[in-house]
Amino acid sequence: MKIKAGIIGATGYAGAELARLLLQRDDVELVWYGSRSYVGQDFASIYRNMAHAAMEPCQDDDMGKLAELADVIFTATPQGFCAAQVTEELLQKTKIIDLSADFRIKDVEIYEQWYKIKHPTPQFLPEAVYGLPEVNREQVKKARLVANPGCYPTCSFLTIYPLVKEGLIDPDTIIIDAKSGTSGAGRGNKTDSLYCEVNESIKAYGVASHRHTPEIEEQLSYAAGKPVTISFTPHLVPMNRGILVTAYASLTESVTAEQVKAVYDSYYQDEYFVRVLEPGMPPQTRWVEGSNFADVGFQLDSRTNRIVMMGAIDNMVKGAAGQAMQNMNLMFGLPEQTGLRQIPVFP
Amino acid sequence: MKIKAGIIGATGYAGAELARLLLQRDDVELVWYGSRSYVGQDFASIYRNMAHAAMEPCQDDDMGKLAELADVIFTATPQGFCAAQVTEELLQKTKIIDLSADFRIKDVEIYEQWYKIKHPTPQFLPEAVYGLPEVNREQVKKARLVANPGCYPTCSFLTIYPLVKEGLIDPDTIIIDAKSGTSGAGRGNKTDSLYCEVNESIKAYGVASHRHTPEIEEQLSYAAGKPVTISFTPHLVPMNRGILVTAYASLTESVTAEQVKAVYDSYYQDEYFVRVLEPGMPPQTRWVEGSNFADVGFQLDSRTNRIVMMGAIDNMVKGAAGQAMQNMNLMFGLPEQTGLRQIPVFP
Amino acid sequence: MKIKAGIIGATGYAGAELARLLLQRDDVELVWYGSRSYVGQDFASIYRNMAHAAMEPCQDDDMGKLAELADVIFTATPQGFCAAQVTEELLQKTKIIDLSADFRIKDVEIYEQWYKIKHPTPQFLPEAVYGLPEVNREQVKKARLVANPGCYPTCSFLTIYPLVKEGLIDPDTIIIDAKSGTSGAGRGNKTDSLYCEVNESIKAYGVASHRHTPEIEEQLSYAAGKPVTISFTPHLVPMNRGILVTAYASLTESVTAEQVKAVYDSYYQDEYFVRVLEPGMPPQTRWVEGSNFADVGFQLDSRTNRIVMMGAIDNMVKGAAGQAMQNMNLMFGLPEQTGLRQIPVFP
Amino acid sequence: MKIKAGIIGATGYAGAELARLLLQRDDVELVWYGSRSYVGQDFASIYRNMAHAAMEPCQDDDMGKLAELADVIFTATPQGFCAAQVTEELLQKTKIIDLSADFRIKDVEIYEQWYKIKHPTPQFLPEAVYGLPEVNREQVKKARLVANPGCYPTCSFLTIYPLVKEGLIDPDTIIIDAKSGTSGAGRGNKTDSLYCEVNESIKAYGVASHRHTPEIEEQLSYAAGKPVTISFTPHLVPMNRGILVTAYASLTESVTAEQVKAVYDSYYQDEYFVRVLEPGMPPQTRWVEGSNFADVGFQLDSRTNRIVMMGAIDNMVKGAAGQAMQNMNLMFGLPEQTGLRQIPVFP
Repeated sequence: MKIKAGIIGATGYAGAELARLLLQRDDVELVWYGSRSYVGQDFASIYRNMAHAAMEPCQDDDMGKLAELADVIFTATPQGFCAAQVTEELLQKTKIIDLSADFRIKDVEIYEQWYKIKHPTPQFLPEAVYGLPEVNREQVKKARLVANPGCYPTCSFLTIYPLVKEGLIDPDTIIIDAKSGTSGAGRGNKTDSLYCEVNESIKAYGVASHRHTPEIEEQLSYAAGKPVTISFTPHLVPMNRGILVTAYASLTESVTAEQVKAVYDSYYQDEYFVRVLEPGMPPQTRWVEGSNFADVGFQLDSRTNRIVMMGAIDNMVKGAAGQAMQNMNLMFGLPEQTGLRQIPVFP
Repeated sequence: MKIKAGIIGATGYAGAELARLLLQRDDVELVWYGSRSYVGQDFASIYRNMAHAAMEPCQDDDMGKLAELADVIFTATPQGFCAAQVTEELLQKTKIIDLSADFRIKDVEIYEQWYKIKHPTPQFLPEAVYGLPEVNREQVKKARLVANPGCYPTCSFLTIYPLVKEGLIDPDTIIIDAKSGTSGAGRGNKTDSLYCEVNESIKAYGVASHRHTPEIEEQLSYAAGKPVTISFTPHLVPMNRGILVTAYASLTESVTAEQVKAVYDSYYQDEYFVRVLEPGMPPQTRWVEGSNFADVGFQLDSRTNRIVMMGAIDNMVKGAAGQAMQNMNLMFGLPEQTGLRQIPVFP
Repeated sequence: MKIKAGIIGATGYAGAELARLLLQRDDVELVWYGSRSYVGQDFASIYRNMAHAAMEPCQDDDMGKLAELADVIFTATPQGFCAAQVTEELLQKTKIIDLSADFRIKDVEIYEQWYKIKHPTPQFLPEAVYGLPEVNREQVKKARLVANPGCYPTCSFLTIYPLVKEGLIDPDTIIIDAKSGTSGAGRGNKTDSLYCEVNESIKAYGVASHRHTPEIEEQLSYAAGKPVTISFTPHLVPMNRGILVTAYASLTESVTAEQVKAVYDSYYQDEYFVRVLEPGMPPQTRWVEGSNFADVGFQLDSRTNRIVMMGAIDNMVKGAAGQAMQNMNLMFGLPEQTGLRQIPVFP
Repeated sequence: MKIKAGIIGATGYAGAELARLLLQRDDVELVWYGSRSYVGQDFASIYRNMAHAAMEPCQDDDMGKLAELADVIFTATPQGFCAAQVTEELLQKTKIIDLSADFRIKDVEIYEQWYKIKHPTPQFLPEAVYGLPEVNREQVKKARLVANPGCYPTCSFLTIYPLVKEGLIDPDTIIIDAKSGTSGAGRGNKTDSLYCEVNESIKAYGVASHRHTPEIEEQLSYAAGKPVTISFTPHLVPMNRGILVTAYASLTESVTAEQVKAVYDSYYQDEYFVRVLEPGMPPQTRWVEGSNFADVGFQLDSRTNRIVMMGAIDNMVKGAAGQAMQNMNLMFGLPEQTGLRQIPVFP
């Protein structure tokens, strides 16, 4: 029997990528293409790549109605939407995987401060599981409500986490310089997202104020066992997909590249979706594009006693839709890689 | 039991794409990564996207040795290589799918004139099947030696063929203006293929002299039942993948858009990989990227009594590796879409 | 004494390019940055490339007021705007160079049919000069009202014109396949202009219906001395700037490449902004980017008795703002190249 | 009387950009297009953007012969070339502006260690002036031999220098994360520079080992009055031109954004080529493309007590050829902006 899945916010880039991944599976039936802007229009007329596979009109965002039909609901919606809809009744009928930030941050004050909105249902925060399978696999399996991590936090955390956890680096010195393809900006009609504005240029944005900062900090704090404050600077890169994280930190002790590699391996050798590179080899977004892989590498710098940690993901897949499906697999007792074994597309 | 496949020329873009597609299958074993330039080097160190899946060193291009191991050999090699290797003995041991032009053109004189090389084994030309499944499906099924079509010819022919066959257009007026992504130029180190030379520019090349011209003409001649001469102009576009064909021809009779659409449908309605668009809707390469689909559309122009026929494919997939695998499926009695149902990746 | 110039529509791409070119001159003073959307905002806050040079706020589009200040007004505005403003009184006070289509087409019925708007001031059509200096130089010098040509027509006409004029090609067989960078789509916030929609894709648009068609036809008709109907298909290319025209026509007589080259030379050898390439050398947009040059080349095809004519311009410069300034130079009795001798920027 | 200039290495990207800038001037005569690879070939056949302006064949790299003809020689050559050619006799005949690293680093041991070559003429190191006019203007005016700064060092130093000099930041905490367009990789035929390898990807390279590191450190050490060691990580970005530097450092005291802005202004308010942005506004490479400007901005981060300093230049202009011409202007007593007032090209 097929898993019945519905997507609220199916016509944004993340929602559409989720549709693409789900439609490629034989064991899932996509029953709802929710899109407030396109209600009644054929989904395939908006995303013609799926013309042969998705023959249904878009529907509204009535999660109550959808909960009657679906075993799992994905919400790829603006901040605040999912939180405003979740009820105990809903969660008794269906599982929810929320791709927004509503349930990612446990501390509601921090959420409200960075997102500038009041959280309508903080009572579900304790139950919500932060859906990074490489860290929270067992909790995800049992979850009714999963907060799918942000794209930058996924890449940043996978890149840094083992070294923080093992105490190899000083968490107070962590600086994350991240670079993202433009799909991360979404499909909204903004001048700053026009082709001619993005092409042939690079810029930082949200410097010292990007909302993924507290999400990264919270997860790193769990790893460090104490509050961690970081510098985080995202950049917009003229490419469609991909996130590259270049992270800097001071070493707490003298280590060799082999030792650091061994630490990464101890965390990731059984993780299908994390590929640890040889010391000194920088990851590149082209090698993960279109896949759920995270490539992680590092370079020691004895001159400065720092380490440069680097990670690359496809922001649409491991950074959003792929990870959501990875979580779905876990929640339904399926092999985690189901539908996610695509080899990265190059060139 | 798995099909054992080998690739000669595995480190070019087309060969690597073939490896990527084959490695994603459970029913195929890739036994040979042939690459003269990289013998002994790990294949995955050259194409890091496949780092988790391809753990073998590159081997030489000894087709004799490979024929002992493989059920099928793909040659993604320069013109003349495959033809110089093929023997009756080889074909009794293994099937060959040649991605070069060696066996595409039946008239050896035309081949030698356009390719400026002597054909070493013209005796196999009659046997070789032109591997366009949408036209030659039954012959492909029985073939030992398949000439995998060129990227431009695949897109051009699928776009134009039904209207030539039905006599709706005057073959003598056909003009094909084609645009290709840069992967079509291969991975050779040429100044003209450097990022800064291709980016932010467009140019025609091989004007009135491109070697895919006689291949398109031969196939169109079969459809027309008489010799056809065309104008063909390829262009280089700053993008990785994709071919767009814009073809012009004069109509032989007065037709409506519905009638033309009906003709296309009659040829392609059962073809999984050809998606006929509604009249007036131009195909776009972004909607086929990463897939084996060909999107075909048209626009009537009553002012000039011409029709504009348009087609889009991914040059790496339907234009090369995907079509080769589609041919392999047919040659081994498998469902044609096996391993090729990927939905196009967007954005 | 400086020429006082004003721009209505200064915050579109063409208007801003005009500002950039004018601001680089010592003999021009830019007195008006008209922009309905940004009234009161600093022009340099919208186009930060000009931050050091343009320190004035945007103003409204009051052409009456501007006419009191300016020796010349450029209108880089939507169709219908300029025509609705022009009066005899205005033209007695100032010169007007209109970058819209309002005065390009002499036949008001054709204008209204293709542009779907009623022309408010057809009485000025006879006076308006089509501002292609290479053809209408003397009339431009005396003009009060210049209709600055469209980007596609400029490139198409310069590419084809000499051969039509000399009767070397049959005008009824002309097919123009044009490719444009994305700046031609303007700065409006449309989904189709977003980075991720344009990048890594190519498509035709406005097939058999683009509004530059009648403009090209009218000019070709003058050259041919009889009505000419053409096929014209524009394409959107993932690059910022540049137009490439690939035009096809049947030859009326047997000619050599040298003869064709001699015809082109006879028209263009004294034209600073037209560079005729050697036979068989295709123009490329990268070689004209950022400049007012038009590169023109051709290839004979004896197999089909056709000629492929090719031209490349920067759509923002020779296709819009540069040509407008070239016209201004002529209208003010200045050397035509003043402010326009920039060498193309590469890479 | 015109300045007679010669370029050794004229067919690399930096050399060609220099040719482009020099050819646009009326007061300079370009007498030598040196290019070992293209001796005898027309320079304009290699860089067709200059087809109308550069009608001479390439010559060899005989600096002795060139010194007889030229008032100034630009060497845009591989490391070690210029140093091997310079003699007292040469410097008595002509001025030299070296775009390679040969004379940038005063400490010959550090040069030899990072560049892995023996310096053939260290005796000229004391005389050579580091050609960053914003810092060393007066010495440049008197110099015979100028070491034109590297692209990354130019951008990094202009971004950081005032705050180091004023002691506002702790030099030991400086981390520079830099991003460059692909023209910085030069025109050599390397697989890694192919269009399909660079496009749609981002990567770090030369991590903790890039040769611009000691150059930046030396200049920062002068500013700090003590040895400075930094982390420097360059990245390759899929665009032609542009460098963005994102630099991090800890503040030494509590400051407001206004105070920091005032410091930048005090250094740069009279510098034509440095545009200081308002606090919190990140520079973007698109706003400097094609110009000699450096845009510099910053963002305070009270949470981490760090400051993020950001700078953007065109690597081909302010990062190479433009700065070389700026130095030439100073060396010949000309206004510094001569030939360099181009407004950045956008889009």
